[in-house]
Amino acid sequence: MTSPRIVLHPDHDRSVGKSFRQATDLDVVVPLRDGVADELTAADVLVSYRWDDSYLTSSLRWIQSISVGVDQYPIDALRRAGVVLTSARGCHGPQVSEHAFGLLLALTRGIGRSMRNAESRLWKPIPGVEISEMTLGILGLGNIGEAIAVKAAAWGMKVIGTKSNPNDYDGVAQAVFPPTETLAVFRAADAVISVLPDTESTRGIVTPECLAVMDGGWFVNVGRGTVVESQHIVDALDSGALAGAGLDVFHPEPLPVSSPLWSHPRVAITNHTAGLSPQYGSRLMKIFRDNLDALRGRGNWVNRVD
Amino acid sequence: MTSPRIVLHPDHDRSVGKSFRQATDLDVVVPLRDGVADELTAADVLVSYRWDDSYLTSSLRWIQSISVGVDQYPIDALRRAGVVLTSARGCHGPQVSEHAFGLLLALTRGIGRSMRNAESRLWKPIPGVEISEMTLGILGLGNIGEAIAVKAAAWGMKVIGTKSNPNDYDGVAQAVFPPTETLAVFRAADAVISVLPDTESTRGIVTPECLAVMDGGWFVNVGRGTVVESQHIVDALDSGALAGAGLDVFHPEPLPVSSPLWSHPRVAITNHTAGLSPQYGSRLMKIFRDNLDALRGRGNWVNRVD
Repeated sequence: MTSPRIVLHPDHDRSVGKSFRQATDLDVVVPLRDGVADELTAADVLVSYRWDDSYLTSSLRWIQSISVGVDQYPIDALRRAGVVLTSARGCHGPQVSEHAFGLLLALTRGIGRSMRNAESRLWKPIPGVEISEMTLGILGLGNIGEAIAVKAAAWGMKVIGTKSNPNDYDGVAQAVFPPTETLAVFRAADAVISVLPDTESTRGIVTPECLAVMDGGWFVNVGRGTVVESQHIVDALDSGALAGAGLDVFHPEPLPVSSPLWSHPRVAITNHTAGLSPQYGSRLMKIFRDNLDALRGRGNWVNRVD
Repeated sequence: MTSPRIVLHPDHDRSVGKSFRQATDLDVVVPLRDGVADELTAADVLVSYRWDDSYLTSSLRWIQSISVGVDQYPIDALRRAGVVLTSARGCHGPQVSEHAFGLLLALTRGIGRSMRNAESRLWKPIPGVEISEMTLGILGLGNIGEAIAVKAAAWGMKVIGTKSNPNDYDGVAQAVFPPTETLAVFRAADAVISVLPDTESTRGIVTPECLAVMDGGWFVNVGRGTVVESQHIVDALDSGALAGAGLDVFHPEPLPVSSPLWSHPRVAITNHTAGLSPQYGSRLMKIFRDNLDALRGRGNWVNRVD
């Protein structure tokens, strides 16, 4: 069997590019953006987080997504064409969980506020609180959510959360609810971290009522911005329901310059970077090589989307 | 035995005041600052982090320090007068360790830089790195240092550090060096956190050479600012030896408005708040009650300074 021809889409993180460049045993081409479809007419494999219908060529046999979410792909059409789709599930846990704690601690230890004061060289001690005895609610106890749960439990926090099917859960959280009981999680938690993707069922799931019941709680979003309206966050901060919000994602993105979130003293902001890591490429490559074996009939697919 | 008369010095954290106010079984007075000595002429106990020689009255039998460090007290004179001195050792681990990780993650996840950009409403993704596979060096593996070590180890970091007497060490760090080998810790570590107090032997212990060998490392200081010259930190940031510095303490304090640390993009700043916590008072009260029993001849002193 000749080596499969692999097209790496030019839109990818630096660490992904590096891992594929270093894999000198693989037959990889990185075309310009408008040359991807052309290259795919004679290739077996696409590695990408982008999709265009012109990519579905007769030679294509397998797509390794660089992203966890695969909503961008025409899953039914791929199935009909016999093209396997695999996701990047499992590449994000370490960095996203560290990022979530970074944002939470930026709030609870007054680091975000102190950084704002630093711009005007204002020495003003901001007293912090302790997270170790808090109850943490995690919206979305999948792969990434569980990485957060494990870190939280290791530091003594009590962990609860939501999961599409709580009966499938096998992790460290002490109580897991279905998404329909999201409000109960906000009610019981001192801090809530969302890792939810953008889907029809997650949009707006963090209602004003969810935030209102927190009574001085902390909210962190490292999933997707569409789970909550920015204005509802601002309202909850101003009413005191939220003590602070740590936000890596927004709706829309980039965050408009007119948004009050930019300058709110109790908001810590990063710019959709929770998933970035120098280790991302090597983790993806490990999945990719397992799946390359599967393509060659040796072993099982990893993260196959059915 | 009548209840001992307790003078709580008016300079104390809110949580300490709250704990003593709530202890309605105790005979506590909180005088104005210039009335402390007067009250002590008829009191047995002083709870304070401040000292003045006028406080050493003939009735004084015990001082419960609100601070860990007790350098402010005339230890020999107290010993001669038969006054017991006990420290607040054990009250700081949870909050200082969380603060140290907050500052470290503010650097490694680009949160500090993003907060600076937020002031000008600039959307600019700052890629982060992962700490979980780093080697962490802790300067001062005492009570607080060990709390940091435990959190680090729980997240998968390799931990090394320094301690006055490494032979006494019984914790999670994999290698412990004497302070004379501080440079070796900087050489081996990806990130270094100092919790060192201000003593004759710690002043300037973080030399320019220590920072220079880091080659893109991360430095966090939640101990005392005198261990390192501010200018050496700036130089190391500018040379690239330091990737970032997370600083809660400075020398002098407050940080002068002229300091370049205020505005350096790779510096995260808080204003000597690592030790602040709403739980501080209840932890101190627990030590205080044990020691009150000891004063009454029931049980042993906790944290007695000999």
